Amino acid sequence: MNVLIIGAHGQIGQHLVDELKNDKKHTPIAFVRKEEQVKEFEEKDVKARLGNLEDSVDEIKKRMTDIDAVVFTAGSGGSTGADKTLLIDLDGAVKAVEAAKASGIDRFVMVSAFGADDRDRWNDELKSYYVAKHFADMWLMDSKLNYTIVRPGMLENKDSIGKVLIKDVIEESDVFSIPRIDVAKVLTEALDNEKTYHKSFDLVTGEDSVSDALNKL
Amino acid sequence: MNVLIIGAHGQIGQHLVDELKNDKKHTPIAFVRKEEQVKEFEEKDVKARLGNLEDSVDEIKKRMTDIDAVVFTAGSGGSTGADKTLLIDLDGAVKAVEAAKASGIDRFVMVSAFGADDRDRWNDELKSYYVAKHFADMWLMDSKLNYTIVRPGMLENKDSIGKVLIKDVIEESDVFSIPRIDVAKVLTEALDNEKTYHKSFDLVTGEDSVSDALNKL
Repeated sequence: MNVLIIGAHGQIGQHLVDELKNDKKHTPIAFVRKEEQVKEFEEKDVKARLGNLEDSVDEIKKRMTDIDAVVFTAGSGGSTGADKTLLIDLDGAVKAVEAAKASGIDRFVMVSAFGADDRDRWNDELKSYYVAKHFADMWLMDSKLNYTIVRPGMLENKDSIGKVLIKDVIEESDVFSIPRIDVAKVLTEALDNEKTYHKSFDLVTGEDSVSDALNKL
Repeated sequence: MNVLIIGAHGQIGQHLVDELKNDKKHTPIAFVRKEEQVKEFEEKDVKARLGNLEDSVDEIKKRMTDIDAVVFTAGSGGSTGADKTLLIDLDGAVKAVEAAKASGIDRFVMVSAFGADDRDRWNDELKSYYVAKHFADMWLMDSKLNYTIVRPGMLENKDSIGKVLIKDVIEESDVFSIPRIDVAKVLTEALDNEKTYHKSFDLVTGEDSVSDALNKL
């Protein structure tokens, strides 16, 4: 199963490439913005395609030949301002959904943000970011693709804990954070797990193994 | 017919209040953000309600009692940055649509932007603005409300010319601009004109009277 990772050079993206490479069931294919990132992946024996979410749907579609599933984990990042948030996190995501649809790719896994589903849960300081994520998620849900939307809590660069809490909406929990590598593990297992089809859920560190948590959905 | 004008204190909004006041068929009700704007309208015998598009759908809904139609002509303006574009032009518009729906108001007229329907028509420098307008329009079209989406060309502060060109998509025209007052005249006539129901169209100065142009839709 060839999995196109949009945002493969990002922090979650790099973990996801490694996870997919190791699980033997999937072949990760990195969708990256810079020539040197293509080289970097190729040196690690990972296929990579040069593409830009600011391009047209047609251009993005050209990077989707022979792809069975797409994981969207791109983000404009905190330093670029709301302008890029609109162009990448919202319109870029929607164009990726449209390109997948036009390519006949049915499976689409989106990395969203904790609380993006509900305005009452939006952090005041990040409100415009949540608007972008919210509408991208809504678009995907409306797209007829077989989607899974993963909304992780506060992302940390820690070693894997490997235990998670997964629920439609997490209101109570001892922790509201999760290591990025554990998000990648959830994405990897979610790809083929039917329990995650046409679902969106919150994700933080918890007490279940990844498979147990996903199977409870 | 009570018409709530969201963005009534804006440049198109003020013309629209005057047009509706004069046509005798409609009662304009201004939805404005500041106490002094409420006073300003009341001094001109125009009803006004204090409201904020950054509030919740429920709060916005409270300003929609006894309203028969909504015209959305609010905009965050060029000086506020893309952050407010996301919060007002996109999420604010969508919240207004949701509030109208929740209030049982069926008629919703949106002031959009020339070319907002098609990425190939987006002006590079204003791209993030177009993303916001595009998704707000798509949301409205998907809302099941009786919508009209008006996409005027370059807005000018000139006297009324009173002649317009209206088409699904205007590709060729002698002019691609329009006085703001003429946009207000089109909005006023569009409100009750069945030819505009469930339609979106481009609008610039042209050769037809407003009614003739609308009746050609």
